[in-house]
Amino acid sequence: MAAFLPPVLSDTIVALSTPPGAGAIALVRLSGPKAVALTDEVFAGKLLRDQPGHTLHYGTIRDGERILDEVVVSLFRAPHSYTREDVVEISCHGSDYIVQQLLGLLTRRGARLAEAGEFTKRAFLHGAFDLAQAEAVADLIAADSALSHQVAMQQMRGGFSQELRALRARLVQFAALLELELDFGEEDVEFADRTGLVALLQEVQALVRRLLRSFELGNVIKNGVTTVIAGKPNAGKSTLLNALLNEERAIVSAVAGTTRDLIEDEVSLDGIRFRFVDTAGLRETTDVVESIGVERTRKRVQQAALLIYLVDITDSTPYEVKVELEALTPDQRIPTLIVGNKLDLASAAQIDSFRSQPNTVLVAAARGDGMEELQNALLARVRGEGLDQTGATTIVTNLRHVRSLEATAAALDAVLVGLSMGTGTELVAADLRQALAALGEITGEISSDDLLTSIFTQFCIGK
Amino acid sequence: MAAFLPPVLSDTIVALSTPPGAGAIALVRLSGPKAVALTDEVFAGKLLRDQPGHTLHYGTIRDGERILDEVVVSLFRAPHSYTREDVVEISCHGSDYIVQQLLGLLTRRGARLAEAGEFTKRAFLHGAFDLAQAEAVADLIAADSALSHQVAMQQMRGGFSQELRALRARLVQFAALLELELDFGEEDVEFADRTGLVALLQEVQALVRRLLRSFELGNVIKNGVTTVIAGKPNAGKSTLLNALLNEERAIVSAVAGTTRDLIEDEVSLDGIRFRFVDTAGLRETTDVVESIGVERTRKRVQQAALLIYLVDITDSTPYEVKVELEALTPDQRIPTLIVGNKLDLASAAQIDSFRSQPNTVLVAAARGDGMEELQNALLARVRGEGLDQTGATTIVTNLRHVRSLEATAAALDAVLVGLSMGTGTELVAADLRQALAALGEITGEISSDDLLTSIFTQFCIGK
Repeated sequence: MAAFLPPVLSDTIVALSTPPGAGAIALVRLSGPKAVALTDEVFAGKLLRDQPGHTLHYGTIRDGERILDEVVVSLFRAPHSYTREDVVEISCHGSDYIVQQLLGLLTRRGARLAEAGEFTKRAFLHGAFDLAQAEAVADLIAADSALSHQVAMQQMRGGFSQELRALRARLVQFAALLELELDFGEEDVEFADRTGLVALLQEVQALVRRLLRSFELGNVIKNGVTTVIAGKPNAGKSTLLNALLNEERAIVSAVAGTTRDLIEDEVSLDGIRFRFVDTAGLRETTDVVESIGVERTRKRVQQAALLIYLVDITDSTPYEVKVELEALTPDQRIPTLIVGNKLDLASAAQIDSFRSQPNTVLVAAARGDGMEELQNALLARVRGEGLDQTGATTIVTNLRHVRSLEATAAALDAVLVGLSMGTGTELVAADLRQALAALGEITGEISSDDLLTSIFTQFCIGK
Repeated sequence: MAAFLPPVLSDTIVALSTPPGAGAIALVRLSGPKAVALTDEVFAGKLLRDQPGHTLHYGTIRDGERILDEVVVSLFRAPHSYTREDVVEISCHGSDYIVQQLLGLLTRRGARLAEAGEFTKRAFLHGAFDLAQAEAVADLIAADSALSHQVAMQQMRGGFSQELRALRARLVQFAALLELELDFGEEDVEFADRTGLVALLQEVQALVRRLLRSFELGNVIKNGVTTVIAGKPNAGKSTLLNALLNEERAIVSAVAGTTRDLIEDEVSLDGIRFRFVDTAGLRETTDVVESIGVERTRKRVQQAALLIYLVDITDSTPYEVKVELEALTPDQRIPTLIVGNKLDLASAAQIDSFRSQPNTVLVAAARGDGMEELQNALLARVRGEGLDQTGATTIVTNLRHVRSLEATAAALDAVLVGLSMGTGTELVAADLRQALAALGEITGEISSDDLLTSIFTQFCIGK
């Protein structure tokens, strides 16, 4: 492979690989055929070209007579590096000035500033990992909860790719038999067992659809769940919010709302990030549909992934709640959880009337009673059927993968229809090839420059 | 030394050493006797305790069964490390989530979160460098211009310390002779040559005073020069500002003023950072003293290190400028440069009348004429006598060093007075000891816990 590298890989790239800003240490990373030689030109210490890989070297960076910094250089020899090329990491003092000077020094000598994600792109092009794994690197960096981290890690380490390759391998086998039939087309032979093929296709189709369904959860894991809390004034929305936050020592951040009536808070429950949006109390209950406050709340509800409708059970009946909810979400499109508050102040009759309702959790938010049940109800709502509690299930988190899986499913449907209608082998084989291509796009077995560009430009510089 | 380490050095510290935030790479650094053993507990790869120093090792970080990240570990063996202790740097993906998990993992196993500057403090305590050099590490990270970088680098590499040690060594020699006299006190001998001592003291005193004077420039180099531009409306302040910025491709940043009338811009001229503050035009020239605008401008002028008074020479006379300036800065405490603008539109008489004035530079800001002369005048004003053009002179940039140098100078004065008045050897020796102590504080030959704490808490975490 090395002898026929595409031109983009023949140059040496450089970038700051740690976040910008003042800190103890900054890392400037070089990769490419001249990574070592270029560093030797500015590094006063041992001659790196004589040193073995996986070693560290102390020295100074010099710009002519001037000492720019005292540094430690990490030396990685191809192919034993992230990119599979020669890689040098210069660990300098974490000063923007020094980093800029160092980048200037190296680019003047022939290194090129790396584009976003270019180190990872090179690793992919050199076969260090496939495209889905490369994409997981960016997901891993962005992961901010246990679950999003776990899903990204599994994908980065090839779990997802393995599952796809297994699917693809089974289809390829049958595709090969179909192609063989085409070669012998005039003799009207059937190498491929049609019944076996249909059974296999249905099995693969079921797996593809399971992966597609997992995206609903995958998206939630990656992007969090926007949960709107609505209810009448004094139902206890703020108390509930505080109770939810107190229960959990994980990531909590307060974001000032765009209007003074909205407060947003994030909390991570069992690895899933919930963004709670507190809405203005629904003031004019007798005039619900008309009031502006309700209009705004309804707008928020429409954007929600989940709605918590909070009720003061000492001051409401299930029937009133039903009417209010119908006014708020006439199409009932948004998954809704009714939370009855003030359990501690309610009469036995009031409690009973609500406890018998579906989708309802009773709490005493001020005392923290019922909060665990509420959290479990929230998690159950979000996880749905998607999450295997062991976490071993493959979960799709990437919209690009969803599109490819959808294309795969459509092509497989066409194959199944073709087979059931006795369509000619040629057309069936063409549809099967399309399914294979769509699957292959995910791991990058089939890729284009445009695709790679659109993927890697979403990375940060230096990765 | 290792056998009798103070308790603070017996534990193992850990911190994120790269800036926080998402990036390609984050470095988590451990230092201390258990740095290697602790890493081995969570690192799946080669057993680090069997590996030589200055080597790199790929592997995974595991929290029980769970894979937290794929990492590269840098191994440094005492005393060949920054702190002179065993040091491990774990290079993981630049995700706050992963870093927090990793820090949690290591602290649960016995590492302690490092305090600000604690790695550098340990390096100092182990004698890797002296206190002035340690302080320069923080200055180096904060340096944002060629000159501030150069001064910090010189100090970090021991240039400043060397000069101080040379001074101190000469004083110590005489102090020893004086102490000897005290031991033989009753015999009334004079080992120390009084005339030679006075000459030496005067020489040392002159050097101390030169260092003290250098602080004016040192402060400017480190903190920049706040330069207020004042003048009547349409004198061309904005044009001048743009011209100053265009001339220079260095660090330029626009900071929105606290009031809509103020614009601040920074520009680095020949390595010195100037922060230009554009003030509101002095609108009511016939009522200068009373107007609020002038009051505000005067306030800014009082905070300035330098004042540029910009004049439209086609519309002013030197006498009017003198009156305006006296109204603006009655005490004339702020160094002022008069800049006559619109040279290109002025008559020969107008030009001549201003050219003969002191502290005056003529420019045509719109065309960029005279800008180099203006820059040179600004630099001359700031550098004063302090800067050797070769940059080889030692420059004091640290207020703590100034305080110690002042104490040294005062003690030396007392010694000189004592000698000239024939004061007893005992008192002279005491004053000399005080001078030595004050000098020794700078490099940390004499230090206290409080001093070290106050110095290192100004560092960032992880350094």
